Amino acid sequence: MSTALSFEPTNYQPPAWEAIVDAHTRIAPRIHRTPILASMSLNALADARFFFKCENLQKTGSFKIRGAANAILSLSNEQAARGIVTQSSGNHGAAVACAAAWRGVPAYIVMPRNAPKVKIQAIEAYGGKITFCEPKVSSRKETCDRVQAETGAHLVHPYDDDRIIAGQATAAKEFLEEMPDLDAVFAPVSGGGLLSGTCLGAIGIRKDIRIIGCEPARADDAYRSLTTGTLQSLESSDTIADGLRASLSPRTFAILRKHVDRILLVTEEEIIATARLVWERMKIIVEPSSSVALAPLLKPAAVKSLNLHSRADGQPPKLGVIFSGGNLDLNALPWLS
Amino acid sequence: MSTALSFEPTNYQPPAWEAIVDAHTRIAPRIHRTPILASMSLNALADARFFFKCENLQKTGSFKIRGAANAILSLSNEQAARGIVTQSSGNHGAAVACAAAWRGVPAYIVMPRNAPKVKIQAIEAYGGKITFCEPKVSSRKETCDRVQAETGAHLVHPYDDDRIIAGQATAAKEFLEEMPDLDAVFAPVSGGGLLSGTCLGAIGIRKDIRIIGCEPARADDAYRSLTTGTLQSLESSDTIADGLRASLSPRTFAILRKHVDRILLVTEEEIIATARLVWERMKIIVEPSSSVALAPLLKPAAVKSLNLHSRADGQPPKLGVIFSGGNLDLNALPWLS
Repeated sequence: MSTALSFEPTNYQPPAWEAIVDAHTRIAPRIHRTPILASMSLNALADARFFFKCENLQKTGSFKIRGAANAILSLSNEQAARGIVTQSSGNHGAAVACAAAWRGVPAYIVMPRNAPKVKIQAIEAYGGKITFCEPKVSSRKETCDRVQAETGAHLVHPYDDDRIIAGQATAAKEFLEEMPDLDAVFAPVSGGGLLSGTCLGAIGIRKDIRIIGCEPARADDAYRSLTTGTLQSLESSDTIADGLRASLSPRTFAILRKHVDRILLVTEEEIIATARLVWERMKIIVEPSSSVALAPLLKPAAVKSLNLHSRADGQPPKLGVIFSGGNLDLNALPWLS
Repeated sequence: MSTALSFEPTNYQPPAWEAIVDAHTRIAPRIHRTPILASMSLNALADARFFFKCENLQKTGSFKIRGAANAILSLSNEQAARGIVTQSSGNHGAAVACAAAWRGVPAYIVMPRNAPKVKIQAIEAYGGKITFCEPKVSSRKETCDRVQAETGAHLVHPYDDDRIIAGQATAAKEFLEEMPDLDAVFAPVSGGGLLSGTCLGAIGIRKDIRIIGCEPARADDAYRSLTTGTLQSLESSDTIADGLRASLSPRTFAILRKHVDRILLVTEEEIIATARLVWERMKIIVEPSSSVALAPLLKPAAVKSLNLHSRADGQPPKLGVIFSGGNLDLNALPWLS
């Protein structure tokens, strides 16, 4: 039940496997066990066997409901009584608003002014009360602190929270339960909630699996943090992957340093082209933040350079990709603007 | 192994359950067992519990690969040697080209000139050889006959063929295997291959299930055929549901007359609005022909008027909807034109 305020990096113990199993038991009746899809035509482009965990088909349109539901459903009535407060670029806000509605308590969502309109509308549709802030880390935090002070609501940080990390870990847990022989799992990284959860959820089932993070070059704080060994942050980013504009936190950085193999960077053009390719070939809607996890693998020789071609069966590697969400404006597609 | 040429309506015996089981065994190693998805927000719009069999996520982007693969994989080497010929507005053509490529034989596809460009490109990508015709039933048939005479290729009619009907039936078979307590199944109807197969595949597992066809009002031949008791046909149609511009055949009419509860009609506006709603809420790409099967159920009191609210458990009815395909031009979305 720790929060960012009480965090002590030197003593930090990430959520144990039992916390992930508990989270899964808590949220499973409320969420979708999302399908794992394959695509022969994408395999042919990369000499790999891809498997896609489709959290874009999850309730609220992203994996974020896993962590939010775990945090909010685990609160006592007293803790939940004055509502939930959080900051979010959109998907975590919708998830918090949805899970707070399940508890019958208010949700106060602090959002940057440049958040996509459809994400604002989704939060409103779940009954969330929105306060806008400037699109900067400092403004997000200040505004969130102020709303918390005014309302007395319980803070559910979007990623620097063990309950969130344990909840997000359940996606990789489901993935590995169904596909225990994956060679590697790829997930997008922003604040690191999904990626750190993916480490814990996947490694808890298969110790030697490789976990690789994927990040827009225009929001490369995780890449720089892992390269330098020091937590880096972005004051702001304008990447089209609007879900990936946040920076790692002490908790997520600690987990990623220990477990993540590497971070791969992609350009804006690669993000958009890959999103369109997934729509066209797989007939599913992924937002740009999702396609970030596939984009680096479609570059020439990219899969080969990861040295994963060492399977005993001589077949191309089995690569698990987590599609994080599918929320975007259907009237303004990235490749038409 | 009968074809349209040898059809005798008075003696017609539709494919038996064994033929459907054989078809499934034949094609299962080659196709996807497509996921069945649910959406709470769509349920809330109709006071129903919807389950969607997602053939838009099938190989080649539509259910058509089921019938085409069954027909083409069941041919002897001698029958297949000179290739396969068919006529199609697009999805059946892509399926035939794909399955013919698996057999290593040529595919000759006769298409109307107004077929969507993306469907033409898909056929070419599978190596199909296209001959264009006028967008009329008579021109389609004449051109197909001519290409068949010139090439000596084996005809695989898009729906007036028992091998096709048995193949399409495997979608409903999978659906009922996983969801045996569905109260009704809804499928779009054009030539009637999917809908007649849905009758046989669903009723083979659950005798008292209701099967309902859904059709654009601008291509209402099945509605008129079942209402009048006489096979009606369209010379042409310009419905945006480009996969539903064909007319019933003697075989499919015989099966529908016996098993289909009714046909529901929808306007062009309803088709487009429902497609957009599915994209937005479910994060999957359905082409307009797919959304035809859901559109009639979202009208006020539509589900209630079907008198399905008689479940022993007092819960809203469980309605199975088959999403037939997901092939459309991502640069020209119906709601943006």
